[in-house]
Amino acid sequence: MITALAGGVGAAKFLNGLVKIVDPKNLTVIVNTGDDIEMYGLHVSPDLDIVCYTLAEIVDETKGWGIRGDTFHFLDAIQRLGFETWFKIGDKDLATHVYRTARLNQGVKLSQVTAEISRSLGLETKILPMTDDKFVTHIVTPEKTMHFQEYLVKRGAKDEVVGVEFVGASVAQPASEVLDAIESSELIVICPSNPIVSIGTILQVKGIKDTLKRSNAQKVAISPIIAGVPVKGPADKLLRGLGFEVSAFSIAKLYADFLDCFVIDLADGLEKNRIEQLGLNVKVTNTIMRSLDNKIQLAKYVLAFL
Amino acid sequence: MITALAGGVGAAKFLNGLVKIVDPKNLTVIVNTGDDIEMYGLHVSPDLDIVCYTLAEIVDETKGWGIRGDTFHFLDAIQRLGFETWFKIGDKDLATHVYRTARLNQGVKLSQVTAEISRSLGLETKILPMTDDKFVTHIVTPEKTMHFQEYLVKRGAKDEVVGVEFVGASVAQPASEVLDAIESSELIVICPSNPIVSIGTILQVKGIKDTLKRSNAQKVAISPIIAGVPVKGPADKLLRGLGFEVSAFSIAKLYADFLDCFVIDLADGLEKNRIEQLGLNVKVTNTIMRSLDNKIQLAKYVLAFL
Repeated sequence: MITALAGGVGAAKFLNGLVKIVDPKNLTVIVNTGDDIEMYGLHVSPDLDIVCYTLAEIVDETKGWGIRGDTFHFLDAIQRLGFETWFKIGDKDLATHVYRTARLNQGVKLSQVTAEISRSLGLETKILPMTDDKFVTHIVTPEKTMHFQEYLVKRGAKDEVVGVEFVGASVAQPASEVLDAIESSELIVICPSNPIVSIGTILQVKGIKDTLKRSNAQKVAISPIIAGVPVKGPADKLLRGLGFEVSAFSIAKLYADFLDCFVIDLADGLEKNRIEQLGLNVKVTNTIMRSLDNKIQLAKYVLAFL
Repeated sequence: MITALAGGVGAAKFLNGLVKIVDPKNLTVIVNTGDDIEMYGLHVSPDLDIVCYTLAEIVDETKGWGIRGDTFHFLDAIQRLGFETWFKIGDKDLATHVYRTARLNQGVKLSQVTAEISRSLGLETKILPMTDDKFVTHIVTPEKTMHFQEYLVKRGAKDEVVGVEFVGASVAQPASEVLDAIESSELIVICPSNPIVSIGTILQVKGIKDTLKRSNAQKVAISPIIAGVPVKGPADKLLRGLGFEVSAFSIAKLYADFLDCFVIDLADGLEKNRIEQLGLNVKVTNTIMRSLDNKIQLAKYVLAFL
């Protein structure tokens, strides 16, 4: 059994390779929900959707999110009605959010709704939200505190970050099966996702970090930072804003208290020694996933730690 | 000032002609909301939308409802997720329902939301829901009691009707401006809509019928029944189920306690005398609205009562 901790695009790409070489049924993915946002009264779970759409191979690969070939007639129409449309929801994608919201309003838990959505997409991998409880990532800037999506999508990650707040983190419980999955795995992969707002949020949920520490699994992380730059997203701005160095080493240090192995890119070969001094088994390989072959190679590399 | 009482398609067609010959600003339309239904947690107001889309000239004229050229990508996707899709919602049309639901959930009244939607469509006519309160039309059949839309759309109006129930009717208050519009009009038009579940519902709302009776306006109705058959919809089945004759006369009798004038189709010329005996001024003309010219001619005919 393998369990992965995942954010959005980077994680989804890696997992897409992984399920080509392991039985998808043997994989559980614990997904960040700190990015979840209510748009027009609809519950949108961006990372859950990116992971599900990617594994179902319906994702719009040029964007990394949304559904390939989707149309935006709904969005155009609601813009004419006066609502903001900076968060791009396609017509097919919208069905996922309407379905999720309707089910949640019927009292069904997010984890159950996620299981229903992933089943309807034909997925055999178990996709779990990190929590069924409210957990919202807020970004603190000199001007104001805002939802992570407002910071990232609406304002293009242009604001200086002076802090990150996780609303609900002190009481959010892991979704059912989350701790079980960690406990019963032989390999736990920390996907190449944002260490603060994707993996960091998952680690904030009560019991997850302790269970990781106690677990006998091989715990392997792939650095989302290559040569001091994130492959995608604002990880550099968040790390810098919180006073961290922007480097693979910095990521390794954030995970060092539970991690066994760390995979860095060829571009960071010189970092190897410094990271090994954190007590980690470090491997250097190509971590840029441009093709399916890249993804599979990286997945094989990670599996080799078993 | 003119006020119209309206249901869906028949009313919308008539009003479409009327606004070609009167200043739309001088028209107020009070619309049935007994058909409103919650689909996927979204508040759908079929008659309000038909009237708004028709007056905005974006309606799908072949169907009489929905938006011309709309796509159904959302509906296809939510069907794959396992939800029923007998109520056809297009992608652009969906924006109206999502907008309405979001605003209602913000505590805004349906009448205010309707004003916002009609403004965004560029309408100058005042479109009012009959009530801002819950008012739901249920059809009683030998098998079960069901929402009107389930009877009409899902089951194709095939069940025998043994009764009609208006849930909430005993407490529903007219939306603000409804009674004022009736009181301040010189002409009140009862559109050629279903007498039971479109006009009948409006007349059930507290104060509306009394205000109509007291009003000094000319009150004119157009028969929705021609030669014993409704132009569209299940009016015949509902009338028969409730023990009424299916005829223009029967409609006139339903409205006789507040009506002044009644317009019947050429096909019903022989009914004229019988209806006049109800104390009504009866006019006979073509009431079938196939073309815009038909609609305008009918509107002119109705205006002639002034």
